[in-house]
Amino acid sequence: MNQTETPHSKKGILGLTEYYAEKIKFKHQSSVSGICDDAAAIAENDRYRLFSNILFLEGINFDLTYSPFKHLGYKAVVAAISDILAMNGTPEQLSIVLGISKKIMTEYIEELMEGALSACSKYEIDMIDFSAVPSLTGLTISVSTIGVVEKSIYVTRKNGKPTDLICVSGDLGSALMGLYLLVREKRVLTGNKVVEPDFGINNDYVIERQLKPEAKKYVINFLKEMGLVPTSMISVKNGLAAALWDICRASGTGCRIYEKKIPLHQNTLKVAHELNYNPLIAALNGGEDYELLFTLSLSEHEKIISQLPENINIIGFLTEPEKSCRMITGNDEEFDIKEIRL
Amino acid sequence: MNQTETPHSKKGILGLTEYYAEKIKFKHQSSVSGICDDAAAIAENDRYRLFSNILFLEGINFDLTYSPFKHLGYKAVVAAISDILAMNGTPEQLSIVLGISKKIMTEYIEELMEGALSACSKYEIDMIDFSAVPSLTGLTISVSTIGVVEKSIYVTRKNGKPTDLICVSGDLGSALMGLYLLVREKRVLTGNKVVEPDFGINNDYVIERQLKPEAKKYVINFLKEMGLVPTSMISVKNGLAAALWDICRASGTGCRIYEKKIPLHQNTLKVAHELNYNPLIAALNGGEDYELLFTLSLSEHEKIISQLPENINIIGFLTEPEKSCRMITGNDEEFDIKEIRL
Repeated sequence: MNQTETPHSKKGILGLTEYYAEKIKFKHQSSVSGICDDAAAIAENDRYRLFSNILFLEGINFDLTYSPFKHLGYKAVVAAISDILAMNGTPEQLSIVLGISKKIMTEYIEELMEGALSACSKYEIDMIDFSAVPSLTGLTISVSTIGVVEKSIYVTRKNGKPTDLICVSGDLGSALMGLYLLVREKRVLTGNKVVEPDFGINNDYVIERQLKPEAKKYVINFLKEMGLVPTSMISVKNGLAAALWDICRASGTGCRIYEKKIPLHQNTLKVAHELNYNPLIAALNGGEDYELLFTLSLSEHEKIISQLPENINIIGFLTEPEKSCRMITGNDEEFDIKEIRL
Repeated sequence: MNQTETPHSKKGILGLTEYYAEKIKFKHQSSVSGICDDAAAIAENDRYRLFSNILFLEGINFDLTYSPFKHLGYKAVVAAISDILAMNGTPEQLSIVLGISKKIMTEYIEELMEGALSACSKYEIDMIDFSAVPSLTGLTISVSTIGVVEKSIYVTRKNGKPTDLICVSGDLGSALMGLYLLVREKRVLTGNKVVEPDFGINNDYVIERQLKPEAKKYVINFLKEMGLVPTSMISVKNGLAAALWDICRASGTGCRIYEKKIPLHQNTLKVAHELNYNPLIAALNGGEDYELLFTLSLSEHEKIISQLPENINIIGFLTEPEKSCRMITGNDEEFDIKEIRL
C-alpha cells in the first residue's frame, strides 16, 4: 500500500464501480448511468436507447480446446443481449470487435461470425458493425449491443421493495455442470488444439447450456403480454447469489429465498451426482446461466399465480435490508447467502 | 487449406470485413452499417445516433513499461471518439470495460479511469458505463462511444469524387517517432515494471503525440462554422497510406497526393533524423496520429483557400479509380502508395 491509495481501492472492483456510480456527473441530460446495472441508457422522447458492452476473453470466458467457434460466436451474442433484456428492453443492433492472435485462422473467424449472425437472426438483431484487430494475448471478443425500451416499462436493479416476489426464469447451475464435464473431458483431449468433444448421451442439456445458451426473450414477452412491469431485474451471469446481492444492494433490501424453489434441471442433478458436486452450490455460485431474475410487487400475486409459465418460478421475496440475504431450507433453517466476487 | 475454405478467407481480415459489409442484411430500417467505415449509425428522425467500439490490447496498442495508466485511459478515449468525429459527429456518451490481469492493482485502474474521465471532461462526453472483468491475457480495454450527427451533415468514407480536394488535419508520423523513442528507452528501463521514462528535453512533442494524443474536434467545429460538408472523411489511425486506400476503395476513386504537402512536425523531422528513419514513411505507414482526413468538392476551393487554418492542409486530390493511389514527389515523379495490412 502507498500513500496515494484511496479508501475505495481497498474494496476492489465492486467498490470501485460503486465509487464511480456515485462520483460521475453528466453533462448531457439524456445520459443515464449503467454502472452497477446491466446496461446504460440514453433518453429519447418517450423511450430509452439502451446500451451495453461485454468482453469475452480467452482463458476466462472460453477455452478453445472445447468451445467450437460457431458456438462461441452464438454465446457471446446471447451474453451481450441478456444485458438489454435485463432492462426489460428489446435488443435491436449489435457490433463485434475481435482481437485475433496468430493461431486464429480466418476460417475460424468465419465460423465464429456464422454463430454470431445465427444468434442475431434468431433474436432479430442487426449486426451493424464488425472489425478485427491483432492480439498478442489470445482471442478477445467485444460485443456491444443497442436496444430500446419504452420509458413506462424501463426496469433497473434499483426499485425492488420489501415483500416483492422474487422470480427467476428457466433453471440454474446447468451451465456450470456443463463446464465441469467439458473440463473433465479436456484432460483427455489435451494436445488437439481445436476439437469438438464427444460426451456420449444424456448430458446434452448441460453441455448445450454451457456452449450455446439462449437469451430469455420469452420473459420480456411474457411480462409485456401480462401487462407486468418488474420492480427490478437482472441477468443471472455469475450465479444466483451474486444476482440476489446485486438486486438487494441496488434496491436497499434484503431477501429470503426457499431452497426447494430454486429451479434445478434433472440433467443438472444427474451430472452433479456423477461429479459428486452439490447442485445447489452450482445454482448459487455457478455462472453463465443467462436467466433473468426479477421482482414483482406482491399486489401482482393473484394476477400471475394462475398464469405463470412453467419456465418462470417464484423463489422468494425481498425483505427489509437489515434482514440480509438468506436462504430457507426444507427444515425451516436459515443460511446466509454468501457472495463470491472478483 | 481445406475444403471449407471460402474465397474471402484468402483475402484475410480486410476481405472478410468487405464480405460482411456486402452480405449482412438488416431487419430494422433504422440500421446503417459501420463495417468498413469508422462508425455505425442508427436513424432517429432527422439525425443519426452514431456508434463505435474499439479494443485497446496490451502488447499491441500499449506497453505498460512506458505507458502511464493515466495517459493510457486518456488515449483510449481519444482513439474511440475519433471514430465518431470521422462521421462528422459529436461524441456524447462513452462506456469502458476493462479486462484486468492479476498484476493490475486497483490503484492502477483508478489512474486509468482518471485519465479516461479527464478526456471525457475535455471533450464533453458522459461516461455512462464502466465495468471490469478478470483477464488471463493482459490488460484489455474496450471503449464504446455514442454520438449524434444531423443527417444533412453525416459523412461516410463512400462519397468522395474525382477532383475532390484531400485535406488532413495536424501533422502525421509524430506518434510513430514518439513510439520509437519509447521503445529505445524501454531497453534501458527493462526490469522496472511500471515507470515513467525520462526523455530529456526537446522531444516532448512526439512523446506526447504517442502517449497522450488529442481528438481533432476542432476540425468538426471548423467545418460547421464554414458550412462545409466533406464528401468523405476518415480517422487516420494506421497511417496516411491506409487512410487514403480506405477512402479510395470506399468511394471508388484513385488519388494523387503531393509529397511536399504532407504535414510533418519539426520534432518529427528531428527525431527521424536522430533515429535515421525516413519521416515520410512514418507519415505514410505509421499509426495512431488520430488526425482527420477528409475530401471536399473542388467547388469549395475558393471558399476555403483563404480561411483554412494552419492546422488543416490540402495535400492532394481524388482521381478516377484507374489512376490508383500515387504520390507526386518534388521532382514530379510518381510513386505508388503501398498499403500495409494485417
